Amino acid sequence: MEERPLILVTNDDGISAPGIKFLVQVASRYGRVVIVAPDKPQSGMGHAITINSTLRIQKTNHHHAEIEFACTGTPVDCVKMAINHILKRTPDLIVSGVNHGSNSAINVIYSGTMSAAIEGSLEGAPVIVFGGCDYSVEADFTQADKFVSKIIERSLSHKMPKGVCLNVNIPKLKAEDFKGIKVVRQARANWVERFDERKDPYGNNYYWLTGEFVNFEPEATDTDEWALANGYISVVPTQADLTAHQVLNDIKYFEN
Amino acid sequence: MEERPLILVTNDDGISAPGIKFLVQVASRYGRVVIVAPDKPQSGMGHAITINSTLRIQKTNHHHAEIEFACTGTPVDCVKMAINHILKRTPDLIVSGVNHGSNSAINVIYSGTMSAAIEGSLEGAPVIVFGGCDYSVEADFTQADKFVSKIIERSLSHKMPKGVCLNVNIPKLKAEDFKGIKVVRQARANWVERFDERKDPYGNNYYWLTGEFVNFEPEATDTDEWALANGYISVVPTQADLTAHQVLNDIKYFEN
Repeated sequence: MEERPLILVTNDDGISAPGIKFLVQVASRYGRVVIVAPDKPQSGMGHAITINSTLRIQKTNHHHAEIEFACTGTPVDCVKMAINHILKRTPDLIVSGVNHGSNSAINVIYSGTMSAAIEGSLEGAPVIVFGGCDYSVEADFTQADKFVSKIIERSLSHKMPKGVCLNVNIPKLKAEDFKGIKVVRQARANWVERFDERKDPYGNNYYWLTGEFVNFEPEATDTDEWALANGYISVVPTQADLTAHQVLNDIKYFEN
Repeated sequence: MEERPLILVTNDDGISAPGIKFLVQVASRYGRVVIVAPDKPQSGMGHAITINSTLRIQKTNHHHAEIEFACTGTPVDCVKMAINHILKRTPDLIVSGVNHGSNSAINVIYSGTMSAAIEGSLEGAPVIVFGGCDYSVEADFTQADKFVSKIIERSLSHKMPKGVCLNVNIPKLKAEDFKGIKVVRQARANWVERFDERKDPYGNNYYWLTGEFVNFEPEATDTDEWALANGYISVVPTQADLTAHQVLNDIKYFEN
């Protein structure tokens, strides 16, 4: 009998979040599931790693999986810990999420869910990261079950180029309203920030980071933002190489 | 009289680190310097931002600059705070570093110094991030003064494409031993991790993340790792777009 694929599930909202619960359920249909996820919410942690302090892991039973650990570190720490310490092998697939909030456009660089995915692909595993356009804890990601299943199934049967992971985002829709899947690029967008200034009880200022999301190319139809706004699940192939290859030759003037 | 350029200086090693001190000195020759940097070391913070807690800023006088603040947040928070709250404008140039440790190859995604730079370029500013291949607090970055000056000077006179920043790394050499500057791409490399397992006084396990850097393309001569190993200062144009554009068409099978 052929052995079932080994699938590592992680996230950044913490091991007991509803989003990871749904993903564990879907992944279990396709393989043996191992869960290593943060013991608390780690949203907005980007690609942070724990180097100036130590890590701990704790067996948990939130998902009744055979191997299931909560880790005190960041999402990236969880992936490193899973592969290098707990499993001592590269999984056949890593799925990260479902994040409560989308990892579309520029959110990709702030998202801990996304960073776990990039870390996984650096380790040589096929990786899919899922984000849902619904921040609430009552988010019903099961509406997208059919599409999440299909993407996991195809990722197990089709080999992706090494070092490239799939960034999948799901609009907040009822099952019957999804129009399908679009393979697109990351939209150029940004957060226009504002700092909400307040005074503590001792008269000192403190600040909350807040802001508004602005899409700089609302007309473009080949972006993740367009897909999500138009009822499609977006799939963006994503990589860790940040080199702006297109300008390498234009800036040779630094060498002279 | 023409006004001098406004240059924002930040880092991830903290506002009092030797690396930022040197960079403030060089930048001061080219413009009015504003410093907003973390109040403590923030290495390995990646693109983390502070969204679940608050931020504070404190005037400091480490560098005797006109505007100088230590911020309780991450390097990315510092840049957002500087542009959106303290300056309320985009600086003419942002310089981040000099990091104690290089931001070459894959280190680019773990580095807080680098993330500050990417954040700055998302805000539309020209940005240079400097890393030095010397982790020690006694690192003597003044040996590279001539090259750091040249790169700042050219960045003020030549416009870079929007959204692209310059990632500059400096090998640990004496001034007379630098061979020059190379414009190169990010090498494909990774950290092969190991978790150092220890027991606390109460008998519970804890872990230190440790590992070894492995360059997967040691023969390639167009990478930052090659430049650094061969006596050159490396310049990599770097961007926030993580889309793997080269595979967009190959994975259309997800749409069907």
